Amino acid sequence: MKFLKIPEATIKRLSVYARYLSNLDAQDRRVISSAELAEECGMNAAQIRKDLAYFGEFGVRGVGYYVKDLLFDIRKILGLNKSWRVALVGVGRLGEALLSYGNFVKQGYHFVAAFDADPAKVGRSIGRDLEVLPMADLPRIVAEREIEIGIITAPAPAAQEVADRLVTAGVRGVLNFAPVRIAVPEGVIVKHVDLTQEFDNLAYLMMTRQQ
Amino acid sequence: MKFLKIPEATIKRLSVYARYLSNLDAQDRRVISSAELAEECGMNAAQIRKDLAYFGEFGVRGVGYYVKDLLFDIRKILGLNKSWRVALVGVGRLGEALLSYGNFVKQGYHFVAAFDADPAKVGRSIGRDLEVLPMADLPRIVAEREIEIGIITAPAPAAQEVADRLVTAGVRGVLNFAPVRIAVPEGVIVKHVDLTQEFDNLAYLMMTRQQ
Repeated sequence: MKFLKIPEATIKRLSVYARYLSNLDAQDRRVISSAELAEECGMNAAQIRKDLAYFGEFGVRGVGYYVKDLLFDIRKILGLNKSWRVALVGVGRLGEALLSYGNFVKQGYHFVAAFDADPAKVGRSIGRDLEVLPMADLPRIVAEREIEIGIITAPAPAAQEVADRLVTAGVRGVLNFAPVRIAVPEGVIVKHVDLTQEFDNLAYLMMTRQQ
Repeated sequence: MKFLKIPEATIKRLSVYARYLSNLDAQDRRVISSAELAEECGMNAAQIRKDLAYFGEFGVRGVGYYVKDLLFDIRKILGLNKSWRVALVGVGRLGEALLSYGNFVKQGYHFVAAFDADPAKVGRSIGRDLEVLPMADLPRIVAEREIEIGIITAPAPAAQEVADRLVTAGVRGVLNFAPVRIAVPEGVIVKHVDLTQEFDNLAYLMMTRQQ
């Protein structure tokens, strides 16, 4: 499959489609029209067709989409047929919440290690089978467990150093939840997740709606 | 101030700018060039100028932006000069993490109530001064405390009912963290926050970078 430069918004919607298709598939639903899929996802059918058109032809005229096929194709596009090995650094409340969020595993993201700088947290068990490890073990564990993605839920002042350590250890993608920008070398991808932005966006829409 | 239809991406970037300006202001920084602000935020200066141009003229040629003025103006645009009263429903790990995340308060979002359907959680103290309340109290508390925004961190099967109750009680904006689409009546704003999307987006970028 060839990869074009696809708008980020399309990629985000594809992951929404994948989630709904996965629910439908679990209910043994075989076929769905684009109108119905749009309804399920809270979007419009034209948008769905446009998003899918980036990647080729999907669906059958007069029938709709075969749920299993479309799910397979979207998951392939998103790289979700692959399973990703993830480490989390900073086992505070948000870190624990992420570690125990079952949906990540369903989508192919496997937390295979968790680290914390606080000796009081090291050795604690999280979820089914994770144990909080000391930062000193990070380079060895990232290599041994072939970890590709690092999640930073450490406090803001520590975030850059954590990112540096993850990257040095071999991680190629970083999801940063700390409220600070971090820099990574060329070739490594970093995404900043800022939960306050979601609030800001909601507040802005509420305010403009009032006018 | 007039509100135009502004792209969501611009609104999201404005809240990033506001965050950095607020840090600069706390460090008593008076003036910043658009190039420096761009550097701080990890964006490019042209993008910043374009985003701000939606709202009028900012900055002084040859000088840059006055930090305090620009922060004030952006916060006004985003509705952040107003403080928002927020209730959270579903005090699981994610709920607790959100309730204790200090940055929300800094940005004007005040959690003034937390609810849970589980009697075992009712009465528990969260953070400084919140107590988990039973669902039955929701209508009265939302009215009494003039709550405008509801955060749903309840399990997916309960999310729609929680949304219905919040809206009936008078909430006009809902931020839904449950991995399910919810419907709200005309005039109420709902934003879905799907943390898995952030992973999907990162994975996609990592995969395409490898080509």
